[in-house]
Amino acid sequence: MSRRRQIYEGKAKILFEGPEPGTLVQYFKDDATAFNNLKKGTIVGKGVLNNRISEHIMTMLGDLSIPTHFIKRLNMREQLIKQVEIIPLEVIVRNVAAGSFSKRMGVEEGTPLPRSIVEFCYKNDELGDPIVGEDVITAMGWINPRELDEVMGMTLRINDVLCGLFAGIGIKLVDFKLEFGRYYTSEDDLQVILADEISPDNCRLWDSKTNEKLDKDRFRRDLGGVAEAYQEIARRLGIFIDPQQVEAQ
Amino acid sequence: MSRRRQIYEGKAKILFEGPEPGTLVQYFKDDATAFNNLKKGTIVGKGVLNNRISEHIMTMLGDLSIPTHFIKRLNMREQLIKQVEIIPLEVIVRNVAAGSFSKRMGVEEGTPLPRSIVEFCYKNDELGDPIVGEDVITAMGWINPRELDEVMGMTLRINDVLCGLFAGIGIKLVDFKLEFGRYYTSEDDLQVILADEISPDNCRLWDSKTNEKLDKDRFRRDLGGVAEAYQEIARRLGIFIDPQQVEAQ
Repeated sequence: MSRRRQIYEGKAKILFEGPEPGTLVQYFKDDATAFNNLKKGTIVGKGVLNNRISEHIMTMLGDLSIPTHFIKRLNMREQLIKQVEIIPLEVIVRNVAAGSFSKRMGVEEGTPLPRSIVEFCYKNDELGDPIVGEDVITAMGWINPRELDEVMGMTLRINDVLCGLFAGIGIKLVDFKLEFGRYYTSEDDLQVILADEISPDNCRLWDSKTNEKLDKDRFRRDLGGVAEAYQEIARRLGIFIDPQQVEAQ
Repeated sequence: MSRRRQIYEGKAKILFEGPEPGTLVQYFKDDATAFNNLKKGTIVGKGVLNNRISEHIMTMLGDLSIPTHFIKRLNMREQLIKQVEIIPLEVIVRNVAAGSFSKRMGVEEGTPLPRSIVEFCYKNDELGDPIVGEDVITAMGWINPRELDEVMGMTLRINDVLCGLFAGIGIKLVDFKLEFGRYYTSEDDLQVILADEISPDNCRLWDSKTNEKLDKDRFRRDLGGVAEAYQEIARRLGIFIDPQQVEAQ
């Protein structure tokens, strides 16, 4: 683990000061939480797997000219990222009804949606990350309309890329959550870029044939085989990780 | 083969009258041509494979709300499609320099492009399908500006989906060609939809690790193993075709 100064500790990750100004080191923990911290646990090796899965996906998005905070992976649990000012919104994309959406809308889990739906939640643990409309988020100044347009454009592109990627390896991308941040490219210029991570922690991934859940819902719903599900996603993505190394880290 | 009335015979496909007004039957031949018909040949089983590969990809695009002409596959070599008025343009998307682009621009084959590039060719065999700019194609009335916007939007989405799909199965999507058509949904309403096919006949597909060509360039450049390359694409896409059935058809 890094001995650098800790900047922030979240539920599943820690951010440390990076080696250069404008950079951070993102450390992936094995800790898992659900239902706004009511449920807590550990998934052995999750941090190692998510570090690799997120590296794989962010690199692919970068290659497709979608700007991300990812710079490079440093070791089994850490990656170097660009330091951003996080926009306090969770951007949720839904292709199939599931989870809180199914409950809230009375739509049976697994029902394909007529088209992909984008929802926003205000990132605020005390309030339980409430759903907010587009009018609210610009009115509250969390994001300006130009940034919102950019976020929507990137989000829809990311959904297309990920739908294709996962379809190719026999997985249905049910829904996922993104976070974006402002990256200051110079004193008076900033760019909105993808931040956080993309992993089975924040995607619902179902096997296309069996609908078996291969994501954090296995933890949320006590289905067992949580680490094995994350490993299966990494394996299908063509990521090789020595299992002994995962447990040793 | 269908005994219905033949509407059109192209280099690789034949179109027959469909069972309902507004539909056609698209039959996939094993014939292959290159360099504007200067080179001709047969790739045994190509029609069967392209029928399945195009079905697979068009279905995925349809699921992502990208409108296509594909209705359903009828048998090993035929699919039912919507009858469209073909827009006389080849829409070419390039992610990596190759083929005619490399020659024309003096960029070595295999060089990644700074961003995805869309080019248009005027579909006209006598003229050799010349490259045309966006200003020309709207001025000539081949497509109107609103339709061009729709075509560009769909094309960029299709590129994202296909880049993700192929990346997931270890294949680099170097470039590909699309065709679009006008589908008359009622007497005075029309929709621009994806037509033709998506297959190794009109995509350049390279193995991500070895850069081995898995597409029609094996035929164009006499590299051998043409049918095997098409089979490999089908196999990686998870399409199972009984090899004995392919040869028998």
